Amino acid sequence: MKTASIIAIGNELVEGILVDTNSKYISKKLLEYGYKTKIIKTLPDDLDLLVKEIKDSLETTNLVVTTGGLGPTEDDLTREAVSKALEKKLIFDENLSKKIIEKAKKFHSYVPKIVERQAMVIEGATVLENPVGTAPGMFLKTSKSTILILPGPPVEMIPIFEEALNLIEKENKIYQRRIKTINIPEAVLVEKYKDIIYKYKEVNVATMASHTSGVELRFTGEKALVDEIVNMLSEKLKDYIYAFDDKTIEEIVFEKLLSKNKTVSFAESCTGGLVSANFVNLSGVSKVFKGSIVAYSNEVKQRVLNVNSKTLEKFGAVSKECVEEMAKGVSKLLDTDYSVAVSGIAGPTGGTKEKPVGTVWICAYSRENDIFMTEGFYFKGNRQTIRNRSTLHAFDMLRRILK
Amino acid sequence: MKTASIIAIGNELVEGILVDTNSKYISKKLLEYGYKTKIIKTLPDDLDLLVKEIKDSLETTNLVVTTGGLGPTEDDLTREAVSKALEKKLIFDENLSKKIIEKAKKFHSYVPKIVERQAMVIEGATVLENPVGTAPGMFLKTSKSTILILPGPPVEMIPIFEEALNLIEKENKIYQRRIKTINIPEAVLVEKYKDIIYKYKEVNVATMASHTSGVELRFTGEKALVDEIVNMLSEKLKDYIYAFDDKTIEEIVFEKLLSKNKTVSFAESCTGGLVSANFVNLSGVSKVFKGSIVAYSNEVKQRVLNVNSKTLEKFGAVSKECVEEMAKGVSKLLDTDYSVAVSGIAGPTGGTKEKPVGTVWICAYSRENDIFMTEGFYFKGNRQTIRNRSTLHAFDMLRRILK
Repeated sequence: MKTASIIAIGNELVEGILVDTNSKYISKKLLEYGYKTKIIKTLPDDLDLLVKEIKDSLETTNLVVTTGGLGPTEDDLTREAVSKALEKKLIFDENLSKKIIEKAKKFHSYVPKIVERQAMVIEGATVLENPVGTAPGMFLKTSKSTILILPGPPVEMIPIFEEALNLIEKENKIYQRRIKTINIPEAVLVEKYKDIIYKYKEVNVATMASHTSGVELRFTGEKALVDEIVNMLSEKLKDYIYAFDDKTIEEIVFEKLLSKNKTVSFAESCTGGLVSANFVNLSGVSKVFKGSIVAYSNEVKQRVLNVNSKTLEKFGAVSKECVEEMAKGVSKLLDTDYSVAVSGIAGPTGGTKEKPVGTVWICAYSRENDIFMTEGFYFKGNRQTIRNRSTLHAFDMLRRILK
Repeated sequence: MKTASIIAIGNELVEGILVDTNSKYISKKLLEYGYKTKIIKTLPDDLDLLVKEIKDSLETTNLVVTTGGLGPTEDDLTREAVSKALEKKLIFDENLSKKIIEKAKKFHSYVPKIVERQAMVIEGATVLENPVGTAPGMFLKTSKSTILILPGPPVEMIPIFEEALNLIEKENKIYQRRIKTINIPEAVLVEKYKDIIYKYKEVNVATMASHTSGVELRFTGEKALVDEIVNMLSEKLKDYIYAFDDKTIEEIVFEKLLSKNKTVSFAESCTGGLVSANFVNLSGVSKVFKGSIVAYSNEVKQRVLNVNSKTLEKFGAVSKECVEEMAKGVSKLLDTDYSVAVSGIAGPTGGTKEKPVGTVWICAYSRENDIFMTEGFYFKGNRQTIRNRSTLHAFDMLRRILK
């Protein structure tokens, strides 16, 4: 397989200001096109360092993709760095400059002169139009490698990159399958099924645990061998598997509701809208999702969701009894077939000896059968981790009650 | 200033499965401790490549921090790679093994033998206890550099890293200030105030635009010079600045509500709970936040928020009239002093000629004065970008009505 380097450029990326999400997107796509990413380098706006690392990548990998550093300001050095690394001139493109200024006028009433820097083109490069912003991308083949230069903002990077993929010769796709599980620890899963998981030396196996998506197994290799392993595990792990490959738990739940022609709503306390927001990430979700109540205060739990004041007094807001009343309440108020309620202590404060930080109760409710599926959890981690894990399990319980 | 390399390890990071968020956290902290991150390398689970890149980093930077690859499974190669790069032995630590197994028993009823791999220690390294998971970290000084080995899951990495910072000699802190603005494009801001922004050659300036936090200016250098620039810009940009340094817009809004002793609620359509979820990221927010209504369907807008059916017929759900009724409705239902309502078309479908994808209406409402602040936006980008920008501006309008 051919190899790729991704170079993410910008002081903000090495000073802890911004997370680079572009490289995930790019490396995933490149894999589909037969390029294995050998290294992702994140570098500051430092001309010498950029030139050195771009040169090194051009010498050691078949494709180099850079993101960032194409803005109009003085700290945007990618054009200059690539031209130096390739020992090619930077040429001002009059026509491109006019186009850029015209585009900039659509965004702002006042177009500063520095925007013209974005019309400097590396000798011999194909200019890739930017349908969103002003900075164009560039594409250039050299004797040893190929370089693709992209802007940093994902919203500009993605459409240019997608276009550029047509320019990159499409290699043989590699074959990869992923199994996504929940409710089983990584070490237990791997130890128990190691004979199947590591059955073939030729199949590359990776395992990973995440608090937003559970434990995942990834198999890469020859189709027949990979499929054999995946088929065997599908049977053995059927109680734990919630999805395969790119499917997310939100998509699984969405499809189930859609096929049953049922609706859902959420009642959220500690997750504070995160379950709903993750669900609304999916386009078209309005077919099954009516809305949610974020009942952060007990007052809202009582007045809007109709939770009994005695329940709150006797058992507290983080209890089996409370989430069941919340689930029933939201299903009634928003008139939905299903509902899920979440209430917990996300911390860092608010924990007690009986209910430490990380205690979370979740209830999935089916109105048709008046069935409650209620579970108590104890999640480790910080506030965000506890809220993410609660969200994952809220979707998992909805998935299970929909079975 | 001393230099650092961060090496993030794992196939999932170069195959587009997972975004590396650790490096942002680490590089930010290191900067406070006087280490400038020269490069972040993201690498697959490939022993030869790991050894080569770790060696290279040990030779070119004063501190090397690795994350990931410390799990119990066969694709976890960091221990081995570092020991090879340093030409030091890996030694099985009997006592550590016992501790790890004991800890693993707390998490799972069944503890597999492979967990013992986590008790292999590099000769001469200080073992750093993992308060959350089983994989310990390691810290080792060599003649040329220092290496810190951390697990990959952020929830385990963070506490070990924080402990390790005590071991790293505290250098002189560098001085950095950040100015966060909204409602002014990056190029306009920089062009208009370039004489101030680039006043001192000795001050390092960086600018960045983000759809979750607006346009940011970052100044690094000598305290007196940086402060002078920041003071001048604070005056000139006062209509656009919403925060300085680490403060987020959510924190600004939270503090304003807290100081006024007022409460808030949200009514969300296209953001689908994202405004609420971002607000609940802040610990202690229950003092001012009661809850929200995610009114994704028109039915919920009408029945729960009391939006008039005629409003929906005449103006549609994405309109000035609708968000004003939503804002008033949620403020009444949840009994809060302030409220913000958001309704828009996040796409990719649902756009029309009059209301294309990206059209968003936001209303901030003050019950005390019965004042509505309502604005229509047109955001470029994909579904997630449009929802993120809507969320940012929802907080900005709340901030402005609270003034």
